[in-house]
Amino acid sequence: MMRTRPLKVALLGCGVVGSEVARIMTTHADDLTARIGAPVELAGVAVRRPDRVREGIDPALVTTDATALVKRGDIDVVVEVIGGIEPARTLITTAFEHGASVVSANKALLAQDGAALHAAAQEHDKDLYYEAAVAGAIPLIRPLRESLAGDKINRVMGIVNGTTNFILDKMDSTGAGYQEALDEATALGYAEADPTADVEGFDAAAKAAILAGIAFHTRVRLDDVYREGMTEVTAADFASAKEMGCTIKLLAICERAEDGGSVTARVHPAMIPLSHPLASVRGAYNAVFVESDAAGQLMFYGPGAGGSPTASAVLGDLVAVCRNRIGGATGPGESAYAALPVSPMGDVVTRYHISLDVADKPGVLAQVATVFAEHGVSIDTVRQQGKDGEASLVVVTHRASDAALSGTVEALRKLDTVRGVASIMRVEGE
Amino acid sequence: MMRTRPLKVALLGCGVVGSEVARIMTTHADDLTARIGAPVELAGVAVRRPDRVREGIDPALVTTDATALVKRGDIDVVVEVIGGIEPARTLITTAFEHGASVVSANKALLAQDGAALHAAAQEHDKDLYYEAAVAGAIPLIRPLRESLAGDKINRVMGIVNGTTNFILDKMDSTGAGYQEALDEATALGYAEADPTADVEGFDAAAKAAILAGIAFHTRVRLDDVYREGMTEVTAADFASAKEMGCTIKLLAICERAEDGGSVTARVHPAMIPLSHPLASVRGAYNAVFVESDAAGQLMFYGPGAGGSPTASAVLGDLVAVCRNRIGGATGPGESAYAALPVSPMGDVVTRYHISLDVADKPGVLAQVATVFAEHGVSIDTVRQQGKDGEASLVVVTHRASDAALSGTVEALRKLDTVRGVASIMRVEGE
Repeated sequence: MMRTRPLKVALLGCGVVGSEVARIMTTHADDLTARIGAPVELAGVAVRRPDRVREGIDPALVTTDATALVKRGDIDVVVEVIGGIEPARTLITTAFEHGASVVSANKALLAQDGAALHAAAQEHDKDLYYEAAVAGAIPLIRPLRESLAGDKINRVMGIVNGTTNFILDKMDSTGAGYQEALDEATALGYAEADPTADVEGFDAAAKAAILAGIAFHTRVRLDDVYREGMTEVTAADFASAKEMGCTIKLLAICERAEDGGSVTARVHPAMIPLSHPLASVRGAYNAVFVESDAAGQLMFYGPGAGGSPTASAVLGDLVAVCRNRIGGATGPGESAYAALPVSPMGDVVTRYHISLDVADKPGVLAQVATVFAEHGVSIDTVRQQGKDGEASLVVVTHRASDAALSGTVEALRKLDTVRGVASIMRVEGE
Repeated sequence: MMRTRPLKVALLGCGVVGSEVARIMTTHADDLTARIGAPVELAGVAVRRPDRVREGIDPALVTTDATALVKRGDIDVVVEVIGGIEPARTLITTAFEHGASVVSANKALLAQDGAALHAAAQEHDKDLYYEAAVAGAIPLIRPLRESLAGDKINRVMGIVNGTTNFILDKMDSTGAGYQEALDEATALGYAEADPTADVEGFDAAAKAAILAGIAFHTRVRLDDVYREGMTEVTAADFASAKEMGCTIKLLAICERAEDGGSVTARVHPAMIPLSHPLASVRGAYNAVFVESDAAGQLMFYGPGAGGSPTASAVLGDLVAVCRNRIGGATGPGESAYAALPVSPMGDVVTRYHISLDVADKPGVLAQVATVFAEHGVSIDTVRQQGKDGEASLVVVTHRASDAALSGTVEALRKLDTVRGVASIMRVEGE
């Protein structure tokens, strides 16, 4: 039985994503009606610049007063694709107060204020969905939250930023340096004029916080995520990686400690073996690798950004929220019952690849090896190269805590025979 | 607020999957309770051999009378992991009639009778979930049905049978023939004593029917799926594939016709370029590549079978169905509103790699090329190899209908100069 009253949708923001959401709502109206069980109607579009021509959107729907739109009281679902913290946060909570459910693509806001927004949704018995906030079109939040709801997730490790993956892939395939690859990414539109949020890992850190929270049923704040950008990755690092049968990716890694009692979340560049499924993720694509007790190893791959892919994720959520509304139900809300402590970076255990510039004389290796041993960091392999009084030592360790490694590096820097620490890179995915 | 009455689960079947479901329900009871909002209790386990010792399962719960168990009236969810058509089908419909929702891992049954089972579920306002029926632990049905509910899916192409992927991967990496690779798969437990369902593509065809139905909102019956096994793939085919920069995979392909007016579903071995994400799916892993209008290209990867992975999918569904039950709602049911016609194999348009044994004399290529032209099949490349009066011609075509290609091959066989058609392989994923 088809319900006849249309569900009313308010769209906040009509940029690259918003205009695509509006377009698909129009072109695929019949399909959406059939899949939801009622028509969906675009009831208003809040924008900053009302005079810009927006193809396919009735100018009568356009308003600059987003607050009035979400307060109308007849809106079923508010789709927030403005981004940033304010006014998005206030508009979303106002929407809940006035009876609407919310679909958002806002990773920064969800990472910072997810708990408060979920609480507001729950207080008003409304849905808050945000599949588009992490990895664009790739279904990730729904699989983690629902498909794996009967499993125990131990690790989520992913390439969740397309800009940095494009740059690193370019460096890997052409031997280019960071700046050259960034310039190409900018020229091709893969990097913004100010690439800081991407290349310094802020964007990936927000996604890591969201993913860790869902995977571990624990609140993980943005501040809990260790973050290291990829601006210092060099062509020499890629050469070292190749010698190890590895490439370098900027990874977001959310892990449960081996004893199960705590979790960590971090973003940094890392070497991964070429045989790992994440190693072959090219260009601006994203992919997330998930390890769980029962399911084993899963991977989700696809475009992590862009107007159409993000709109696809928004519309999937819109259909779900509309169905819930018709059924008089809400979907799963925040699940933070596990409330596991989030450990600092020092507690993370992984392997390391360290390049040292050292004096080319006897006894240096013995000195260096002693420092590693004193800090409890076990060495897997060492490679020495030297000529003309200059030499380098490349050390790959067994698994050790980040704190132990940091202590080791600090002590190495104090050795007279160590002229400099050329690079330290974590090794993941083995 | 935690509801106190536990939800009662009846488990039908306690083999590799069922025992793992029971184990996880016990070991992860607290997590399941927190995620569902109420405890779940194993209320009965129907088995064929009641005297077998089942670790961790209270013998008092074990019964051979599955019918009585699903008729009890106090069961909230029936988990069916028996497999096969009967008695599973009758037990599931009986469960709906007696007030239970159903989680099933039964691909054969869903492919054959999905429409009737969905209708029974809907009649009694109950859920029918079956994520585990396709590609084991890989979240696929939920992403297709929910995450992409606002998008238009155009193609689903996947490796959905682990046994055959293990065999083909082995042939590819070692140069082994089919029988040798099958023997190894059997010895390692990847292939059953009677491997027919896997190697002849029956298993993959059932999954293709289910996936096509969901992707295209159209009923696709098992009989609608064209099916060709992989028992005739040879080491020579792999050598030919390598020359083209390809490998060979057994693919399930569900496609919307370019004009959007019909769909096709098929299972057959095919060459795919090594650069395609599906080409690097190794061993018994599964992966499904999805192409949609807005999201673009997505891939889902993971273990396609095995007790634990399948149990993970079953338990994810169990959590969802229990949540729905507590919320007084049901999840999305069958969506077949599009009701697109399913076209026969002859209408499928793809590329072909054909190896011919021909007489080594002038004019053969001209004769062969004429036959292709007469059937409207355009040739992309031809390679001739010959010595001592024997020669081979390898033809790769542009896109053409399967009917046109069949007509071409039939006519080629009638040429005096064509001694035999050594192999015909479709080329996908370009």
